[in-house]
Amino acid sequence: MSKLNVSQKLIQSHLLHGEMIAGQEIGIRIDQALLQDATGTLVQLELEAMGLKKAKTEVAVQYVDHNLLQTDSKNADDHLFLLSAAQRFGLWYSRPGNGVSHPVHMERFGKPGKTLVGSDSHSCAAGSLGMLAIGTGGLDVAAAIAGQPYFVKMPKVMGVELSGKLPDWVSAKDVILEMLRRYDVKGGVGKIIEYYGEGLKNLSVMDRHVIANMGAELGATTTVFPSDDETKRFLISQNRESDWTELIADSGATYDEYAAINLGDLVPLIALPTSPGNVVPVSEVAGKEIGQVVIGSSANPGLRDFWIAGVIVKDKTINSAVSFDVNPTSRQTIQNMLKNFTFANLITAGARFHQSGCMGCIGMGQAPATGTISLRTMPRNFPSRSGTEDDQVYLCSPETAAASALTGKITDPRDMEKIYGMKYPKFENPEVEIINTDMLVAPLKDGLGVELHKGPNIKSIPEIEALQQDYRIPILLKMGDNVSTDEILKAGADVLPLRSNIPEISKYAFSVIDPSFYDRAMKSKKEFGGHIVIAKENYAQGSSREHAALAPKYLGQVAVIAQSYARIAWQNLVNFGIVPLEFINVSDYDKMEQGDLIRFKNLREDVVNRNNIKVVIEKGDGSTLEFETKHSLSDRQINVLAKGGIINDFRTKL
Amino acid sequence: MSKLNVSQKLIQSHLLHGEMIAGQEIGIRIDQALLQDATGTLVQLELEAMGLKKAKTEVAVQYVDHNLLQTDSKNADDHLFLLSAAQRFGLWYSRPGNGVSHPVHMERFGKPGKTLVGSDSHSCAAGSLGMLAIGTGGLDVAAAIAGQPYFVKMPKVMGVELSGKLPDWVSAKDVILEMLRRYDVKGGVGKIIEYYGEGLKNLSVMDRHVIANMGAELGATTTVFPSDDETKRFLISQNRESDWTELIADSGATYDEYAAINLGDLVPLIALPTSPGNVVPVSEVAGKEIGQVVIGSSANPGLRDFWIAGVIVKDKTINSAVSFDVNPTSRQTIQNMLKNFTFANLITAGARFHQSGCMGCIGMGQAPATGTISLRTMPRNFPSRSGTEDDQVYLCSPETAAASALTGKITDPRDMEKIYGMKYPKFENPEVEIINTDMLVAPLKDGLGVELHKGPNIKSIPEIEALQQDYRIPILLKMGDNVSTDEILKAGADVLPLRSNIPEISKYAFSVIDPSFYDRAMKSKKEFGGHIVIAKENYAQGSSREHAALAPKYLGQVAVIAQSYARIAWQNLVNFGIVPLEFINVSDYDKMEQGDLIRFKNLREDVVNRNNIKVVIEKGDGSTLEFETKHSLSDRQINVLAKGGIINDFRTKL
Repeated sequence: MSKLNVSQKLIQSHLLHGEMIAGQEIGIRIDQALLQDATGTLVQLELEAMGLKKAKTEVAVQYVDHNLLQTDSKNADDHLFLLSAAQRFGLWYSRPGNGVSHPVHMERFGKPGKTLVGSDSHSCAAGSLGMLAIGTGGLDVAAAIAGQPYFVKMPKVMGVELSGKLPDWVSAKDVILEMLRRYDVKGGVGKIIEYYGEGLKNLSVMDRHVIANMGAELGATTTVFPSDDETKRFLISQNRESDWTELIADSGATYDEYAAINLGDLVPLIALPTSPGNVVPVSEVAGKEIGQVVIGSSANPGLRDFWIAGVIVKDKTINSAVSFDVNPTSRQTIQNMLKNFTFANLITAGARFHQSGCMGCIGMGQAPATGTISLRTMPRNFPSRSGTEDDQVYLCSPETAAASALTGKITDPRDMEKIYGMKYPKFENPEVEIINTDMLVAPLKDGLGVELHKGPNIKSIPEIEALQQDYRIPILLKMGDNVSTDEILKAGADVLPLRSNIPEISKYAFSVIDPSFYDRAMKSKKEFGGHIVIAKENYAQGSSREHAALAPKYLGQVAVIAQSYARIAWQNLVNFGIVPLEFINVSDYDKMEQGDLIRFKNLREDVVNRNNIKVVIEKGDGSTLEFETKHSLSDRQINVLAKGGIINDFRTKL
Repeated sequence: MSKLNVSQKLIQSHLLHGEMIAGQEIGIRIDQALLQDATGTLVQLELEAMGLKKAKTEVAVQYVDHNLLQTDSKNADDHLFLLSAAQRFGLWYSRPGNGVSHPVHMERFGKPGKTLVGSDSHSCAAGSLGMLAIGTGGLDVAAAIAGQPYFVKMPKVMGVELSGKLPDWVSAKDVILEMLRRYDVKGGVGKIIEYYGEGLKNLSVMDRHVIANMGAELGATTTVFPSDDETKRFLISQNRESDWTELIADSGATYDEYAAINLGDLVPLIALPTSPGNVVPVSEVAGKEIGQVVIGSSANPGLRDFWIAGVIVKDKTINSAVSFDVNPTSRQTIQNMLKNFTFANLITAGARFHQSGCMGCIGMGQAPATGTISLRTMPRNFPSRSGTEDDQVYLCSPETAAASALTGKITDPRDMEKIYGMKYPKFENPEVEIINTDMLVAPLKDGLGVELHKGPNIKSIPEIEALQQDYRIPILLKMGDNVSTDEILKAGADVLPLRSNIPEISKYAFSVIDPSFYDRAMKSKKEFGGHIVIAKENYAQGSSREHAALAPKYLGQVAVIAQSYARIAWQNLVNFGIVPLEFINVSDYDKMEQGDLIRFKNLREDVVNRNNIKVVIEKGDGSTLEFETKHSLSDRQINVLAKGGIINDFRTKL
């Protein structure tokens, strides 16, 4: 393996444990850590529980971009807690209103050749800069900040060769939507997607960000781009030329899998409700009436993305049936939008400008009206994520979004030429952007004396008991394919403020699927000492929120049986002491119904000894059925699981 | 009465019933109506219930400025309902994001010499333009839209003579805070405050708006300014010169009461928690650490107000402990702020810019952290209104707010000269502002065919039974002076979206004072057929929300006994069939305790015949006490009350 691709170079230069053989667990050294506020409060509580003195990563940053609405004191209390914790543990703190974590991190801290873990599933966005950047559960990030290696199964590397040049009215979002059209939301599971080829020179670093960011939607471990001249240009524009290093694949490097996209062949694409994988050409659904358009989010954060929307709506008025919501990426982006008149173009045409942050992307406001279509440049459209029941959220490029805002109907942006006689405008990247670092609070040299500021809603993490041998517990839910973390524990304005209070947030576990879940789980916990849930493929896809494991654990979840797991969730389950079992025979799924009782006789022993795990189903009529399951955990994971999760593991070590 | 002041001229030219004798009920013709969304959904349901064909006012406008967060589908559903209702009944519709009702109305529709009623207590702001503009309950506005006269007790007119010129660093907000310092939150009850004198020429129309707006906090019926050359200049700046007419007091006109303010004597003032009447000089509380500053709202909506804040923070960075939140008044204001660099100055210094609307002023986001001080240019700081329990909200001018945002402490803005060597900057009003009307949807010529778009949260108004003779009902609450509508039925992000659903919103009735109220009221309703509450002076001050009457009525409230009532609330109680009784002997208040039973023997007959109303108190030990109460209702009001409110009255007429 003398000729390496970029992913292999990044891993090899950070490899501490294991070998670069696909499927084997490796441990890698982590240079940077990224936290956002919705997952970060828990991470900071974990750092506190671990007794950390000072962050050991080169750079760790606590962002505040999720919980910004402040409908009561909880959000603002969390902000003060996070600031105090950042100061206490030696992290940077990006203040509320400073912007969305991923683009801000890329602009201010990202560095080619470095590794990063982030407690947000879209942390992979930094792959646009030639980094190995992995979104993961908060505990993994806490461990990395404490100087521990990051453990992950060595992914396959899928090389995607890009050639050609994007046609007019087609942009980076359409590239990742094309990937989703081809491979769907689990096509990237167990893989790094690495882009290479001649077409790269036609994609700016912010275009690459769009593609890398939504690699999360493919289920990929991460996405990697090389660091090339365009990367250098970008870092110069951020006044950080000295942070640039070249990082490109060796000539003759190979990949585990191959794909190719001729950018010139692409057309405007759109993801239909309720999955980012439901992709069709915009032209197929053109003409449907819409009620809302939202631009912004980490999936389309670049100055270009707002600029193109601004130029499209310039001197026109958005359709009177459409709420045209704009979420500027950061204060820095706003300043640059003022300079190039994007802000004026958008506001004059009728935009509702919101504060910088994730906002409607995670259901923090901007919920659409019942029964209306919302077009968004965001990365996800899982059911209810917008805050509206039975929502109809479509995902698209800024070009498609802006054109549709004008017509009030889903509109192929290429029709702008026909309707408005408009030529496709070309963006010129500014040589140097306006830079603004005033709302980044630097870490202290010595923060040991800083007291953590805990508001009344910030509660300690509940105790988790070690894994037992015998269980006789009911199946509380039988789910299908691709259940998302938004269904397991929804985000949104009601629930996000409870992220630092496990007993409270647990009331919403699985409530999207079944509002009675919490009551049934509490009853089961009392009566049987726990419960189990079953699912099919790609269980717990979506965000990195470890609450989707910790809250079910708090409610007594012993195990999940599924055909396969989304990568982050699989790790999170182990980290919090839930056994992620896998069907050996897929048809066994059909033997079970909600309400059946499940008996495990030697669960702990079977897990530890890597035996197949025997499951006995007790049906309501007294009859029983049996089948076997397995797991694919590493020795390290087995050890963690047996102790009841990583926190117990750390406690043992201390 | 041949020599008339401005208030008398406005009333005389619109008088339909009664005489201009203070204390007597008059009925006046209404030219304009203003609705905001939080009260407007109910008004539109009332228009529907009344079977209105088309609005009979010259101008009626449905604004959307309160419920903008859209944390679930309710807000957006309401927006669609309000648009459909505006089209159905012939109203203008100001779309979400277009701006705060009062300043937008003044800029686009306000006209000297006209009368206006608005379903928002700050509707009096239009008095700045030489209008008689009265905030009132939604049913009164619905009646006005349907062509009915507006009935109100003829107020006394208090003439406030202004002389001199404001010192540097002192602005219009300090004028109204001085009035509140002198007269407190009930000093204006039963009065029109009319400003006159030489000092007027030094106050722009937007300065006058600041003063007129917060006349609501004095409890005044309204505030009136003359229409003079400054009014003309303002209308020219809005491209509406033709709407100007002069309206000034006759030479030698007199007032029922007199006051005088020499503007040159004023200093920066601040209202302490938790009443707009707790006013002291800023210097008295200077140095207290703060966590938040919010500028904007209808109390400081002018371009100047943002401009001065922008100039103060220009090329500086706001204190790292402060969240500096800016709520731009309207899209038009944002466009003008872009032009004069105010927007850039604020954002560069560290502001969090929010969408145009009321936002934190009515607890729609921006809640401060627990135990921290929030400085706001808003009109109200009633307990919990910010969304934070035990909040500490201070009210001040933009000058004080901006200076404090820089230092992180409450700061007398005059200290800017000492601290930053800064001279007080002088604002030049632009000759013509950028005008933007794109988000105002005009009424249809014929809207009879428009169907009302009712989302799942929009429920019909519950039935109210006619007033009965005999009651034996418990006292559920014993309250003190100045109970605000924010305590009777709080606003905020949890509750405002329920404004079109009475059964749901009733769960929050009096919850600020006693969270058990709803349960106790439902129990009383079942057991005794209703309840009563008692209070002292100025009951139900604050906003115009008729939900503060309708929700208690839904829970079985038969009567209130208080020493005195805030004007709007007194009318709202009658409109929804609750008897507003008054103590004859103030000391009778002390005879009663929460939980005592109250017996009325001939309530209906006594009310109708204007007898004193005998009250028997049954104490817990079986003993009884007696005392008498009265009411001061007009014949028209007695008729309404006997029928169980205006809706029943209208139903009878139809």
